[in-house]
Amino acid sequence: MAKIRRIQLKSKKYIPLPGISPGSIQLYEGALPSKITAFAYDNTEYQCEDLNSLDELDKYFKKRPALTHWIDIRGIGELELYDYIEKKYKIHKLVLEDIANIQQRPKVDEYDGYLYAVSRMLYVDTGLEIENEQVSFILFPKVLISFQENYTQKFEPVIHRLQSGKGNIRAGGSSYMLYSLMDVIVDDYFTLIYKLGDELETIEELLYRKPDKTLMHQTQAIKRAMIMIRRAVWPERDKINDMIRSESKLINKQTKTFLKDTYDHCMQVIDLVESYKDITTSLIDMNLSFISNRMNEIMKVLTIISSIFIPLTFIAGVYGMNFAYQDPKTGEILQHNMPELYSENGYVYTMAVMVLIGIVQMFYFWRKGWLSNK
Amino acid sequence: MAKIRRIQLKSKKYIPLPGISPGSIQLYEGALPSKITAFAYDNTEYQCEDLNSLDELDKYFKKRPALTHWIDIRGIGELELYDYIEKKYKIHKLVLEDIANIQQRPKVDEYDGYLYAVSRMLYVDTGLEIENEQVSFILFPKVLISFQENYTQKFEPVIHRLQSGKGNIRAGGSSYMLYSLMDVIVDDYFTLIYKLGDELETIEELLYRKPDKTLMHQTQAIKRAMIMIRRAVWPERDKINDMIRSESKLINKQTKTFLKDTYDHCMQVIDLVESYKDITTSLIDMNLSFISNRMNEIMKVLTIISSIFIPLTFIAGVYGMNFAYQDPKTGEILQHNMPELYSENGYVYTMAVMVLIGIVQMFYFWRKGWLSNK
Amino acid sequence: MAKIRRIQLKSKKYIPLPGISPGSIQLYEGALPSKITAFAYDNTEYQCEDLNSLDELDKYFKKRPALTHWIDIRGIGELELYDYIEKKYKIHKLVLEDIANIQQRPKVDEYDGYLYAVSRMLYVDTGLEIENEQVSFILFPKVLISFQENYTQKFEPVIHRLQSGKGNIRAGGSSYMLYSLMDVIVDDYFTLIYKLGDELETIEELLYRKPDKTLMHQTQAIKRAMIMIRRAVWPERDKINDMIRSESKLINKQTKTFLKDTYDHCMQVIDLVESYKDITTSLIDMNLSFISNRMNEIMKVLTIISSIFIPLTFIAGVYGMNFAYQDPKTGEILQHNMPELYSENGYVYTMAVMVLIGIVQMFYFWRKGWLSNK
Amino acid sequence: MAKIRRIQLKSKKYIPLPGISPGSIQLYEGALPSKITAFAYDNTEYQCEDLNSLDELDKYFKKRPALTHWIDIRGIGELELYDYIEKKYKIHKLVLEDIANIQQRPKVDEYDGYLYAVSRMLYVDTGLEIENEQVSFILFPKVLISFQENYTQKFEPVIHRLQSGKGNIRAGGSSYMLYSLMDVIVDDYFTLIYKLGDELETIEELLYRKPDKTLMHQTQAIKRAMIMIRRAVWPERDKINDMIRSESKLINKQTKTFLKDTYDHCMQVIDLVESYKDITTSLIDMNLSFISNRMNEIMKVLTIISSIFIPLTFIAGVYGMNFAYQDPKTGEILQHNMPELYSENGYVYTMAVMVLIGIVQMFYFWRKGWLSNK
Amino acid sequence: MAKIRRIQLKSKKYIPLPGISPGSIQLYEGALPSKITAFAYDNTEYQCEDLNSLDELDKYFKKRPALTHWIDIRGIGELELYDYIEKKYKIHKLVLEDIANIQQRPKVDEYDGYLYAVSRMLYVDTGLEIENEQVSFILFPKVLISFQENYTQKFEPVIHRLQSGKGNIRAGGSSYMLYSLMDVIVDDYFTLIYKLGDELETIEELLYRKPDKTLMHQTQAIKRAMIMIRRAVWPERDKINDMIRSESKLINKQTKTFLKDTYDHCMQVIDLVESYKDITTSLIDMNLSFISNRMNEIMKVLTIISSIFIPLTFIAGVYGMNFAYQDPKTGEILQHNMPELYSENGYVYTMAVMVLIGIVQMFYFWRKGWLSNK
Repeated sequence: MAKIRRIQLKSKKYIPLPGISPGSIQLYEGALPSKITAFAYDNTEYQCEDLNSLDELDKYFKKRPALTHWIDIRGIGELELYDYIEKKYKIHKLVLEDIANIQQRPKVDEYDGYLYAVSRMLYVDTGLEIENEQVSFILFPKVLISFQENYTQKFEPVIHRLQSGKGNIRAGGSSYMLYSLMDVIVDDYFTLIYKLGDELETIEELLYRKPDKTLMHQTQAIKRAMIMIRRAVWPERDKINDMIRSESKLINKQTKTFLKDTYDHCMQVIDLVESYKDITTSLIDMNLSFISNRMNEIMKVLTIISSIFIPLTFIAGVYGMNFAYQDPKTGEILQHNMPELYSENGYVYTMAVMVLIGIVQMFYFWRKGWLSNK
Repeated sequence: MAKIRRIQLKSKKYIPLPGISPGSIQLYEGALPSKITAFAYDNTEYQCEDLNSLDELDKYFKKRPALTHWIDIRGIGELELYDYIEKKYKIHKLVLEDIANIQQRPKVDEYDGYLYAVSRMLYVDTGLEIENEQVSFILFPKVLISFQENYTQKFEPVIHRLQSGKGNIRAGGSSYMLYSLMDVIVDDYFTLIYKLGDELETIEELLYRKPDKTLMHQTQAIKRAMIMIRRAVWPERDKINDMIRSESKLINKQTKTFLKDTYDHCMQVIDLVESYKDITTSLIDMNLSFISNRMNEIMKVLTIISSIFIPLTFIAGVYGMNFAYQDPKTGEILQHNMPELYSENGYVYTMAVMVLIGIVQMFYFWRKGWLSNK
Repeated sequence: MAKIRRIQLKSKKYIPLPGISPGSIQLYEGALPSKITAFAYDNTEYQCEDLNSLDELDKYFKKRPALTHWIDIRGIGELELYDYIEKKYKIHKLVLEDIANIQQRPKVDEYDGYLYAVSRMLYVDTGLEIENEQVSFILFPKVLISFQENYTQKFEPVIHRLQSGKGNIRAGGSSYMLYSLMDVIVDDYFTLIYKLGDELETIEELLYRKPDKTLMHQTQAIKRAMIMIRRAVWPERDKINDMIRSESKLINKQTKTFLKDTYDHCMQVIDLVESYKDITTSLIDMNLSFISNRMNEIMKVLTIISSIFIPLTFIAGVYGMNFAYQDPKTGEILQHNMPELYSENGYVYTMAVMVLIGIVQMFYFWRKGWLSNK
Repeated sequence: MAKIRRIQLKSKKYIPLPGISPGSIQLYEGALPSKITAFAYDNTEYQCEDLNSLDELDKYFKKRPALTHWIDIRGIGELELYDYIEKKYKIHKLVLEDIANIQQRPKVDEYDGYLYAVSRMLYVDTGLEIENEQVSFILFPKVLISFQENYTQKFEPVIHRLQSGKGNIRAGGSSYMLYSLMDVIVDDYFTLIYKLGDELETIEELLYRKPDKTLMHQTQAIKRAMIMIRRAVWPERDKINDMIRSESKLINKQTKTFLKDTYDHCMQVIDLVESYKDITTSLIDMNLSFISNRMNEIMKVLTIISSIFIPLTFIAGVYGMNFAYQDPKTGEILQHNMPELYSENGYVYTMAVMVLIGIVQMFYFWRKGWLSNK
Repeated sequence: MAKIRRIQLKSKKYIPLPGISPGSIQLYEGALPSKITAFAYDNTEYQCEDLNSLDELDKYFKKRPALTHWIDIRGIGELELYDYIEKKYKIHKLVLEDIANIQQRPKVDEYDGYLYAVSRMLYVDTGLEIENEQVSFILFPKVLISFQENYTQKFEPVIHRLQSGKGNIRAGGSSYMLYSLMDVIVDDYFTLIYKLGDELETIEELLYRKPDKTLMHQTQAIKRAMIMIRRAVWPERDKINDMIRSESKLINKQTKTFLKDTYDHCMQVIDLVESYKDITTSLIDMNLSFISNRMNEIMKVLTIISSIFIPLTFIAGVYGMNFAYQDPKTGEILQHNMPELYSENGYVYTMAVMVLIGIVQMFYFWRKGWLSNK
């Protein structure tokens, strides 16, 4: 039998302290120290290096001035990171605050000389815990910096393509790299949705066979997950649309063509989410009707047994009464007192009447359709 | 009695591998090898040929350069197909990916020299399984290529009209052919919806006569089917609207007039779908109230029988008590102990009281309206 | 007592055959042969004639070339009708198809030299069956042709006004006549809605006095009727709006002023429909709570009676046990065996205890408010 | 204890006769004869006169040609009124029809030389009956005519201000007067809404203390009243917006500034209505859960008492069986037949077992939390 | 165990007297007398002073003409305040009315020389009472006046920043100060929402462990709070958007950049609110299914016990009947009268049959799954 595992939404809270100076960096609880990997490539060359500290970044760039660069930063829990980025790249304070505030909705903001974009990466952890991670991007003409919350290697397929040099990933410049990473994120939505969809199918199957309290909870959990995904995808779609219609020179025309494809994928995700959300609603409705049906079934059993035996017990009770045959004082025979008890076939007739009553009732219940299991 | 057959939505999953190069062809599970039929026609001529392989297509075109061509490809599960199309017709990689990704929403994309359109074909299989098939079209000035997932011959009526040369199908060029095929697809929605509508009527009829658990499931299934159809028709409508307002030279003015008609049909389908969706909601509501009513009925039977006989049984129980007539030790008569048992008409009076109580209760229940079956 | 009659929506199905040539006329099942009445009028003259066949129409026009004409065609089930109209008036094939396809949504289409409009006429038949009839109009500069499905004389008030020559109906030209007929149709919605509203009031009244299964069905039926009316009125409103903003010379300025009035009526109809739809929802909710309340009432009766008598019956049962007074073998008196039975006032005390238990329970139930009928 | 009075919506029906000539005046049932009060004022002067008939109006105007006039007409049930207005002021027939048709939605229509506006005045009658009255206005450069259905003096505060000459009401011209009256109407919505809101609070309080069938009805009634208010306020808002953006010279700039304030009030009314509507929904939900909870409570009492005493009664029944101690024929002792009855402490042990069973069950129910009243 | 405290929405009513002159100040019940604190600052200087009366304000300004000023007024219950503001700053009467009318929706109005803005400040009081306070702002080129209802010091963090001179708060001018205060208000929404969110989590946890009537009320209360927050945030968002797109010179470009950040925060608040509202709906649904499940459980206990013991009691009742062994008159043995009673193992067999019946029933219930606690 298919087993049901509990789905959970991981939730990290980031409560802005009211009144702190805008642009102040406020790290969320549990933010990780940064791991930095730097990629440099063009049509012919490809280099990848793990950096131990931000300081190495300078040297790194000096070595390869002509290449396209992608700096992949995993873990955003060090204040030095923000300081460095701000000073080195002249990034607006509000952008840095947004990178640290991990509750951003997907959006794209254009600044002088660079572009800031946020995506939400959704995936199922081991143990059916849904991770909702923020990924920020800063796009320069020849450099892309990405910021991830966790150390998970979700961009590995892109790195693989970069290594192998297939497709136009090496020739597309930094905006194509941005597209590639965002595309991975959107494609991951499908994986997540189908995993939840499979759970739904299991639930539906079990619901027909063996309805159960936990199914309701699981359905509710999936419904909430769907709502969460929808909340990520709608602004994702808007963001991609903004990028397609953007007049910024940072995003080249070829990238826009590919972004249209990602836009279509977003629409498909939205369709799927709505579809599965409808199914959860339908399952919850069905569950309620199942509960009511079971109640009906229980009540029918009670009613049938009680209705048959209570009247019979009454009859038995009548003939268990002790009305005297003769007046104990006078010895006079009280002939109206239960003469049935003293007739020859009193017992047999009584039992026959009882059986008859039982049969009549069974017939009545059968005609009402209460005996069939529907 | 009308029988209820289970409606099912066939679902094929196409999960894009995150991070694969955009434009990579990823075949869905169970994709079929291609069968190709080529049609060539103009006002006077008509030819139809089944091709064994894509290579024959070249020869085929050379033989009839002046005619309008429709290449009908059924089955999209061969990678060579995409290769051939790409090389021969200079189709963008993303278009090819879309043809293979069978979860496209209806849309139309304009490219240099050709136009790519997607429709969703919905129809009921034998066995009430609803098929949701993707049909892609590539439209050139004189050639239309259509891509279907399955081998079903849903375009037969168009082929028939082409053969007989009736109407302006032969004179309308490739865009009129595109319209004709899309029109068939939209008209098929009516067939599907009415079939589901008939099921709904059967369900409603049964609901009044003999409510049943399976009716609920069937109603839910039809509701989902309606949601699925709606999800196909809305973007279909938008697509047609885009085509009507398109400035592409590929779609001629006459075709646009006819597309307006298809647009109206889409609106009618949407109306019907909303209408039937409302009916399913209404049926689900009614089902719940039926279940509650049945519970009421069951409880009334239990309550009537219990309420009448439990007090009577109590009375019988009282007179079945063994309080002694005389003290066994002293032989003194205990005159307060159940003197009724020794009165001349004790039994008769007791029974009379019992009957009276029963009548009073029946009257009470009758006045409450519990005896009528409502 | 107000009686409830079953409301039903008449539904005619028109399933377009997929793939038939666009513009092909497909008659719906049960389409009636045409009856034609021709009206010719101007400020001073008025003539009305029933024509036996379409052929007479020619002669008819020749006799009165200067007048305004209204050709009223009732019944659209003859193919010759479409042929004649097409040839005589050069009407587009798609318009003819739309006249025959009786599932059109209200709309207005402008063509060269004429204008095609569709309205939906809703009215209650005898027997509370709601008729949903399509009325098509073709408007020429001096001629209006109207097409109705049935023979019902819903336009009689207009004919009456035409006859009497009151108002500016004779002077307004063919577009004013079109307005007049559409106005009749919209005003008829009020009649229908108020009739349904009266039913709703009856239902609500009965619901408070004597809730009943059939009330639920009736409410659901009215809800559906409201949904159907809404589906007709919204596009009707849009159509009228299109006509008001149309730049066609066929609709003169004076007519547009009057159409604004019809537009306002449409808005009122929409308001009423929404209002009554809310009431149906509210009635369905109340019905459900009534059912639950009744269940509560039934359960209270059962619980009160069972709770009181079951413990009493138990006590009676205890004293009906046959534990022996003396050991039958040894004759020794078993003094622990139910000495109550042999005490002087055992019976009286037992009965007193029983009465006391009953009173305590009644008091408990009274305090819980279960004895009042709420 | 707070008492609940039944809220009712007064509904007057105005069913347009289909096909009557547009602009025909059709009086609603119960329309009152007109009472006319004329006000004439400027910065320095103020005069108020009750007119006995429309004819006096002429004389009235002649006496005070330079002043601003407000003609307050209460009661619109006389056909002469419409005749007089039409002839004297050259008002369009459709406007007159709209004044008589008391189901207009709030709107403003501009005509040559005058402006026609409709408001809906909502207020609670004595006896919690909600009145929904139509107020029409015709605005000329120096004259405002208002038409009310009833004789209620809802404009008294404005008259008072006019008398006292405070604010700029006397200097603002006829459009400011129109604004003042409309402002009174919108401010009255607050009074109505808060009255209903107070009822809702009473209901909620009672719901917690003593749920009752009538509370449900009252909640439903308030919900409907809220829906009715919303239906009046939304178009009211649109109307005011239209007036603010109108280019008509009849509404001067200063008035528009004040209308913006009324617009804001409309938005507040809408907010309040939505808020209270949400509360009614929440109360209906809570009511349903209360009903279910009470059912649970009732069932618990039944189950506890039955479950405890039914098994005990069975035991008592067993020892009330009459299996013979010795064979009556042979006198042989049947030692397997209920030896318990003849044991020394049979009764005591039996009773002990019964008490034990009762205690075990009570403990079970207590652990399930059924004994606490939750 | 987590404890549930009751959440309440504080509601103050402000019912405009219908017909009072627009711009009249109407104080709400409980309005507090004003406390005034004046701040004057520029890049180098900072002064803060508590003023005893409005008259001191003049002197205050004269002393520091070149600095930026923020006048913080807490308590708006004195008519002299409005008089002073009106005369001194030439503020429009409607603005003053809006300051006093504490039910304004967030909005921004531009006037000649100044700008009027309203925000709604939401926070949880001690005791989980949610305060919904109106904060008004009047923005001049170098002066900002803020009006709060209560004496709570919600702007303390800003004052702190002002004191310390960190960030660009001292250099940003009055519009930056306006932004800072509005930003505090929006950030406070997060605090409130997360507090309610924590409550929701506690409720959900308790719901699984120990469902309870009060949980339902609490959930409903949180749902309403969410609705109230949403009602504040949406217009807040629109207001900020209006300010960003405003062409007024009062708001400088730098401030607009920061307002975009606040706009994003509003969007996040809206997302969170929708998210938590969905969770409340889900909890209410689950609660209902819990209640139904408990009912099922209760009924199962009743049904199992009744179904087992009622038939057994019947059997015991049968053998408790007193059918005579021999005719008391004739002494003839009535051999059909309950011969079982006199058989050797009658009692043992009877008990065995009873046990068997019990076992069969238990098996039946076990197979139905009624014995497991699901």
